Amino acid sequence: MAPIAVGDSLPDGTLSYFDAEDKLQQVSIHSLAAGKQVILFGVPGAFTPTCSLKHVPGFIEKAAEFKSKGINEIICISVNDPFVMKAWAKTYPENKDVKFLADGSATYTHTLGLQLDLSEKGLGTRSKRFALLVDNLKVKAANIEQGGEFTVSSADDILKAML
Amino acid sequence: MAPIAVGDSLPDGTLSYFDAEDKLQQVSIHSLAAGKQVILFGVPGAFTPTCSLKHVPGFIEKAAEFKSKGINEIICISVNDPFVMKAWAKTYPENKDVKFLADGSATYTHTLGLQLDLSEKGLGTRSKRFALLVDNLKVKAANIEQGGEFTVSSADDILKAML
Repeated sequence: MAPIAVGDSLPDGTLSYFDAEDKLQQVSIHSLAAGKQVILFGVPGAFTPTCSLKHVPGFIEKAAEFKSKGINEIICISVNDPFVMKAWAKTYPENKDVKFLADGSATYTHTLGLQLDLSEKGLGTRSKRFALLVDNLKVKAANIEQGGEFTVSSADDILKAML
Repeated sequence: MAPIAVGDSLPDGTLSYFDAEDKLQQVSIHSLAAGKQVILFGVPGAFTPTCSLKHVPGFIEKAAEFKSKGINEIICISVNDPFVMKAWAKTYPENKDVKFLADGSATYTHTLGLQLDLSEKGLGTRSKRFALLVDNLKVKAANIEQGGEFTVSSADDILKAML
Protein backbone atom coordinates (compact mmCIF):
# COMPACT_ATOMS: atom_id res chain seq x y z
CA MET A 1 0.00 0.00 0.00
CA ALA A 2 1.47 3.37 -1.02
CA PRO A 3 1.53 5.91 1.79
CA ILE A 4 -1.52 8.13 1.89
CA ALA A 5 -1.00 11.39 0.02
CA VAL A 6 -2.63 14.76 -0.66
CA GLY A 7 -5.75 14.32 -2.78
CA ASP A 8 -6.46 10.80 -1.56
CA SER A 9 -9.69 9.84 0.11
CA LEU A 10 -9.14 8.93 3.73
CA PRO A 11 -9.79 5.18 4.04
CA ASP A 12 -12.09 3.92 6.74
CA GLY A 13 -10.95 1.77 9.61
CA THR A 14 -11.85 0.81 13.15
CA LEU A 15 -9.98 2.03 16.19
CA SER A 16 -10.60 1.45 19.86
CA TYR A 17 -10.60 3.43 23.08
CA PHE A 18 -11.97 3.42 26.60
CA ASP A 19 -14.86 5.79 27.10
CA ALA A 20 -15.53 7.96 30.15
CA GLU A 21 -17.17 4.98 31.88
CA ASP A 22 -14.03 2.92 31.20
CA LYS A 23 -15.86 0.74 28.70
CA LEU A 24 -13.95 -0.47 25.66
CA GLN A 25 -15.44 1.07 22.53
CA GLN A 26 -14.76 0.82 18.83
CA VAL A 27 -15.13 3.71 16.47
CA SER A 28 -14.85 4.05 12.71
CA ILE A 29 -12.66 6.81 11.39
CA HIS A 30 -15.33 7.75 8.85
CA SER A 31 -17.87 8.27 11.62
CA LEU A 32 -15.50 10.83 13.14
CA ALA A 33 -14.31 12.47 9.94
CA ALA A 34 -17.17 12.50 7.43
CA GLY A 35 -18.40 16.03 6.78
CA LYS A 36 -15.78 17.48 9.10
CA GLN A 37 -12.35 19.02 9.14
CA VAL A 38 -10.09 16.78 11.16
CA ILE A 39 -6.46 16.38 12.04
CA LEU A 40 -5.20 12.83 12.30
CA PHE A 41 -1.73 12.46 13.66
CA GLY A 42 0.21 9.29 14.32
CA VAL A 43 3.13 8.48 16.55
CA PRO A 44 5.56 5.56 16.75
CA GLY A 45 4.76 4.85 20.35
CA ALA A 46 2.99 5.84 23.53
CA PHE A 47 5.39 6.85 26.29
CA THR A 48 8.29 7.41 23.88
CA PRO A 49 10.13 10.70 24.38
CA THR A 50 9.52 12.58 21.12
CA CYS A 51 5.87 11.54 21.00
CA SER A 52 5.23 12.27 24.66
CA LEU A 53 7.21 15.46 25.16
CA LYS A 54 6.87 17.23 21.81
CA HIS A 55 4.44 15.81 19.28
CA VAL A 56 1.36 15.30 21.47
CA PRO A 57 1.81 18.41 23.66
CA GLY A 58 2.00 20.55 20.53
CA PHE A 59 -1.45 19.47 19.41
CA ILE A 60 -2.89 19.85 22.90
CA GLU A 61 -1.47 23.37 23.21
CA LYS A 62 -2.76 24.43 19.79
CA ALA A 63 -6.16 22.76 20.10
CA ALA A 64 -8.04 26.01 20.73
CA GLU A 65 -6.36 27.61 17.74
CA PHE A 66 -7.26 24.64 15.55
CA LYS A 67 -10.87 24.79 16.71
CA SER A 68 -11.05 28.51 15.97
CA LYS A 69 -9.90 27.69 12.44
CA GLY A 70 -12.67 25.16 11.91
CA ILE A 71 -11.08 21.87 12.96
CA ASN A 72 -13.74 19.59 14.46
CA GLU A 73 -11.62 16.70 15.65
CA ILE A 74 -7.97 16.15 16.57
CA ILE A 75 -7.15 12.46 16.68
CA CYS A 76 -3.95 10.80 17.84
CA ILE A 77 -3.35 7.24 16.64
CA SER A 78 -0.70 4.81 17.76
CA VAL A 79 0.01 1.13 17.35
CA ASN A 80 -0.53 0.50 21.01
CA ASP A 81 -3.45 -1.26 22.61
CA PRO A 82 -6.30 0.70 24.21
CA PHE A 83 -5.04 -0.09 27.73
CA VAL A 84 -1.71 1.56 26.99
CA MET A 85 -3.37 4.45 25.15
CA LYS A 86 -5.64 5.08 28.13
CA ALA A 87 -2.69 5.09 30.52
CA TRP A 88 -0.76 7.39 28.20
CA ALA A 89 -3.67 9.79 27.73
CA LYS A 90 -3.94 10.11 31.51
CA THR A 91 -0.48 11.67 31.56
CA TYR A 92 -2.05 14.74 29.87
CA PRO A 93 -4.66 15.81 32.42
CA GLU A 94 -4.88 19.24 30.73
CA ASN A 95 -6.08 17.64 27.48
CA LYS A 96 -9.69 18.17 26.51
CA ASP A 97 -9.57 18.03 22.74
CA VAL A 98 -7.20 15.38 21.46
CA LYS A 99 -8.78 11.92 21.14
CA PHE A 100 -6.38 9.03 21.74
CA LEU A 101 -7.31 6.03 19.59
CA ALA A 102 -5.63 2.64 19.59
CA ASP A 103 -4.64 0.73 16.47
CA GLY A 104 -3.31 -2.21 18.47
CA SER A 105 -2.92 -4.63 15.58
CA ALA A 106 -1.67 -1.92 13.17
CA THR A 107 -4.54 -2.67 10.80
CA TYR A 108 -5.49 0.92 10.10
CA THR A 109 -1.86 2.02 10.00
CA HIS A 110 -1.31 -0.54 7.22
CA THR A 111 -4.41 0.76 5.44
CA LEU A 112 -2.82 4.22 5.46
CA GLY A 113 0.45 2.74 4.17
CA LEU A 114 2.23 4.27 7.14
CA GLN A 115 3.56 1.19 8.91
CA LEU A 116 7.11 1.28 10.22
CA ASP A 117 9.03 -1.91 10.97
CA LEU A 118 10.84 -1.42 14.26
CA SER A 119 11.18 -5.15 14.96
CA GLU A 120 14.96 -4.97 15.06
CA LYS A 121 14.70 -2.34 17.77
CA GLY A 122 12.36 -4.59 19.72
CA LEU A 123 9.30 -2.47 19.03
CA GLY A 124 7.51 -4.60 16.42
CA THR A 125 5.42 -2.98 13.70
CA ARG A 126 4.59 0.62 14.48
CA SER A 127 3.42 3.76 12.72
CA LYS A 128 5.52 6.39 11.06
CA ARG A 129 5.19 9.76 12.67
CA PHE A 130 2.73 11.78 10.60
CA ALA A 131 0.02 14.40 10.58
CA LEU A 132 -2.87 14.57 8.12
CA LEU A 133 -5.24 17.45 7.54
CA VAL A 134 -8.49 16.02 6.21
CA ASP A 135 -11.53 17.91 4.95
CA ASN A 136 -14.66 15.79 4.52
CA LEU A 137 -12.51 12.68 3.97
CA LYS A 138 -10.22 14.36 1.42
CA VAL A 139 -6.58 14.60 2.43
CA LYS A 140 -5.46 18.25 2.24
CA ALA A 141 -2.04 17.85 3.85
CA ALA A 142 -0.02 14.70 4.47
CA ASN A 143 3.09 15.43 6.49
CA ILE A 144 4.91 12.14 6.93
CA GLU A 145 8.25 11.86 8.70
CA GLN A 146 11.18 9.75 7.59
CA GLY A 147 12.68 7.45 10.22
CA GLY A 148 12.74 8.97 13.69
CA GLU A 149 12.54 12.57 12.53
CA PHE A 150 10.21 15.25 13.78
CA THR A 151 10.48 17.99 11.19
CA VAL A 152 7.18 18.21 9.26
CA SER A 153 4.39 16.71 11.38
CA SER A 154 4.06 19.13 14.29
CA ALA A 155 0.97 21.11 15.22
CA ASP A 156 2.72 24.23 13.86
CA ASP A 157 3.37 22.50 10.55
CA ILE A 158 -0.33 21.70 10.22
CA LEU A 159 -1.28 25.25 11.18
CA LYS A 160 0.96 26.47 8.36
CA ALA A 161 -0.69 24.00 5.97
CA MET A 162 -4.05 25.56 6.82
CA LEU A 163 -3.07 29.06 5.68
CA MET B 1 7.06 -24.18 18.39
CA ALA B 2 5.43 -26.26 21.12
CA PRO B 3 4.84 -24.37 24.34
CA ILE B 4 7.66 -24.69 26.83
CA ALA B 5 7.09 -27.49 29.35
CA VAL B 6 8.50 -29.02 32.51
CA GLY B 7 11.87 -30.63 31.84
CA ASP B 8 12.73 -28.36 28.92
CA SER B 9 15.82 -26.22 28.88
CA LEU B 10 14.95 -22.54 29.00
CA PRO B 11 15.87 -21.09 25.60
CA ASP B 12 17.96 -17.96 25.45
CA GLY B 13 16.66 -14.68 24.11
CA THR B 14 17.25 -10.97 24.34
CA LEU B 15 14.95 -8.59 26.16
CA SER B 16 15.22 -4.87 26.76
CA TYR B 17 14.69 -2.40 29.57
CA PHE B 18 15.65 1.06 30.74
CA ASP B 19 18.28 1.06 33.47
CA ALA B 20 18.40 3.36 36.49
CA GLU B 21 20.08 6.05 34.35
CA ASP B 22 17.23 5.75 31.83
CA LYS B 23 19.50 4.18 29.23
CA LEU B 24 18.05 1.49 26.99
CA GLN B 25 19.74 -1.83 27.72
CA GLN B 26 19.49 -5.32 26.32
CA VAL B 27 19.90 -8.41 28.42
CA SER B 28 20.00 -12.10 27.62
CA ILE B 29 17.75 -14.37 29.62
CA HIS B 30 20.59 -16.85 30.08
CA SER B 31 22.77 -14.16 31.66
CA LEU B 32 20.04 -13.67 34.27
CA ALA B 33 19.07 -17.30 34.76
CA ALA B 34 22.18 -19.48 34.38
CA GLY B 35 23.18 -21.05 37.67
CA LYS B 36 20.21 -19.49 39.43
CA GLN B 37 16.67 -20.18 40.52
CA VAL B 38 14.40 -17.79 38.72
CA ILE B 39 10.72 -17.13 38.18
CA LEU B 40 9.76 -15.91 34.75
CA PHE B 41 6.20 -14.78 34.39
CA GLY B 42 4.47 -13.38 31.37
CA VAL B 43 1.41 -11.24 30.90
CA PRO B 44 -0.78 -10.38 27.92
CA GLY B 45 -0.31 -6.67 28.38
CA ALA B 46 0.99 -3.80 30.43
CA PHE B 47 -1.78 -1.68 31.93
CA THR B 48 -4.44 -4.38 31.44
CA PRO B 49 -6.58 -5.06 34.50
CA THR B 50 -5.75 -8.68 35.40
CA CYS B 51 -2.05 -8.16 34.80
CA SER B 52 -1.89 -4.86 36.63
CA LEU B 53 -4.18 -5.50 39.57
CA LYS B 54 -3.62 -9.19 40.31
CA HIS B 55 -0.80 -10.97 38.51
CA VAL B 56 2.04 -8.49 39.01
CA PRO B 57 1.09 -7.37 42.55
CA GLY B 58 1.07 -11.01 43.67
CA PHE B 59 4.70 -11.46 42.70
CA ILE B 60 5.71 -8.14 44.24
CA GLU B 61 3.97 -9.02 47.52
CA LYS B 62 5.53 -12.47 47.68
CA ALA B 63 9.01 -11.40 46.57
CA ALA B 64 10.52 -11.62 50.05
CA GLU B 65 9.07 -15.09 50.51
CA PHE B 66 10.44 -16.21 47.15
CA LYS B 67 13.87 -14.86 48.04
CA SER B 68 13.83 -16.66 51.37
CA LYS B 69 13.16 -19.86 49.44
CA GLY B 70 16.18 -19.39 47.19
CA ILE B 71 14.75 -17.53 44.19
CA ASN B 72 17.40 -15.20 42.77
CA GLU B 73 15.41 -13.36 40.13
CA ILE B 74 11.75 -12.63 39.45
CA ILE B 75 11.24 -11.48 35.90
CA CYS B 76 8.07 -10.14 34.30
CA ILE B 77 7.93 -10.26 30.50
CA SER B 78 5.38 -8.69 28.22
CA VAL B 79 5.01 -8.03 24.52
CA ASN B 80 5.19 -4.31 25.04
CA ASP B 81 8.05 -2.02 24.17
CA PRO B 82 10.54 -0.87 26.82
CA PHE B 83 8.95 2.61 26.95
CA VAL B 84 5.60 1.15 27.93
CA MET B 85 7.21 -1.33 30.34
CA LYS B 86 9.07 1.50 32.05
CA ALA B 87 5.88 3.53 32.42
CA TRP B 88 4.04 0.48 33.71
CA ALA B 89 6.79 -0.46 36.18
CA LYS B 90 6.60 3.06 37.62
CA THR B 91 3.03 2.36 38.72
CA TYR B 92 4.54 -0.06 41.31
CA PRO B 93 6.72 2.27 43.38
CA GLU B 94 6.86 -0.35 46.15
CA ASN B 95 8.53 -2.87 43.84
CA LYS B 96 12.18 -3.64 44.45
CA ASP B 97 12.47 -7.20 43.23
CA VAL B 98 10.50 -7.81 40.06
CA LYS B 99 12.40 -6.95 36.87
CA PHE B 100 10.18 -5.71 34.02
CA LEU B 101 11.61 -6.78 30.66
CA ALA B 102 10.23 -5.89 27.25
CA ASP B 103 9.75 -8.37 24.42
CA GLY B 104 8.47 -5.69 22.07
CA SER B 105 8.60 -7.74 18.88
CA ALA B 106 7.40 -10.93 20.60
CA THR B 107 10.58 -12.74 19.50
CA TYR B 108 11.30 -14.40 22.83
CA THR B 109 7.63 -15.12 23.43
CA HIS B 110 7.59 -17.04 20.14
CA THR B 111 10.76 -18.88 21.20
CA LEU B 112 8.89 -20.02 24.31
CA GLY B 113 5.92 -21.06 22.16
CA LEU B 114 3.69 -18.86 24.28
CA GLN B 115 2.45 -16.35 21.71
CA LEU B 116 -1.22 -15.42 21.78
CA ASP B 117 -2.93 -13.90 18.76
CA LEU B 118 -5.15 -11.08 19.98
CA SER B 119 -5.24 -9.32 16.60
CA GLU B 120 -9.00 -9.58 16.38
CA LYS B 121 -9.27 -7.77 19.69
CA GLY B 122 -6.98 -5.04 18.38
CA LEU B 123 -4.06 -6.11 20.54
CA GLY B 124 -1.83 -7.80 17.96
CA THR B 125 0.43 -10.70 18.94
CA ARG B 126 0.86 -10.98 22.67
CA SER B 127 1.93 -13.50 25.27
CA LYS B 128 -0.18 -16.03 27.08
CA ARG B 129 -0.30 -15.48 30.78
CA PHE B 130 2.20 -17.86 32.36
CA ALA B 131 4.65 -18.44 35.15
CA LEU B 132 7.77 -20.60 34.91
CA LEU B 133 9.94 -21.82 37.74
CA VAL B 134 13.43 -22.37 36.37
CA ASP B 135 16.42 -23.91 38.16
CA ASN B 136 19.75 -23.42 36.37
CA LEU B 137 17.95 -23.18 33.02
CA LYS B 138 15.83 -26.30 33.61
CA VAL B 139 12.08 -25.72 33.72
CA LYS B 140 10.69 -27.08 36.99
CA ALA B 141 7.16 -25.71 36.70
CA ALA B 142 5.35 -24.34 33.65
CA ASN B 143 1.98 -22.88 34.57
CA ILE B 144 0.40 -21.63 31.39
CA GLU B 145 -3.06 -20.13 31.25
CA GLN B 146 -5.68 -20.79 28.59
CA GLY B 147 -7.24 -17.71 27.01
CA GLY B 148 -7.79 -14.89 29.44
CA GLU B 149 -7.79 -17.06 32.55
CA PHE B 150 -5.86 -16.50 35.73
CA THR B 151 -6.07 -19.81 37.55
CA VAL B 152 -2.60 -21.44 37.56
CA SER B 153 0.05 -18.73 37.07
CA SER B 154 -0.15 -16.68 40.25
CA ALA B 155 2.62 -16.14 42.76
CA ASP B 156 0.78 -18.49 45.12
CA ASP B 157 0.65 -21.18 42.45
CA ILE B 158 4.42 -20.95 42.00
CA LEU B 159 4.95 -21.03 45.76
CA LYS B 160 2.96 -24.27 45.85
CA ALA B 161 5.06 -25.67 42.99
CA MET B 162 8.17 -25.06 45.09
CA LEU B 163 7.02 -27.22 47.98
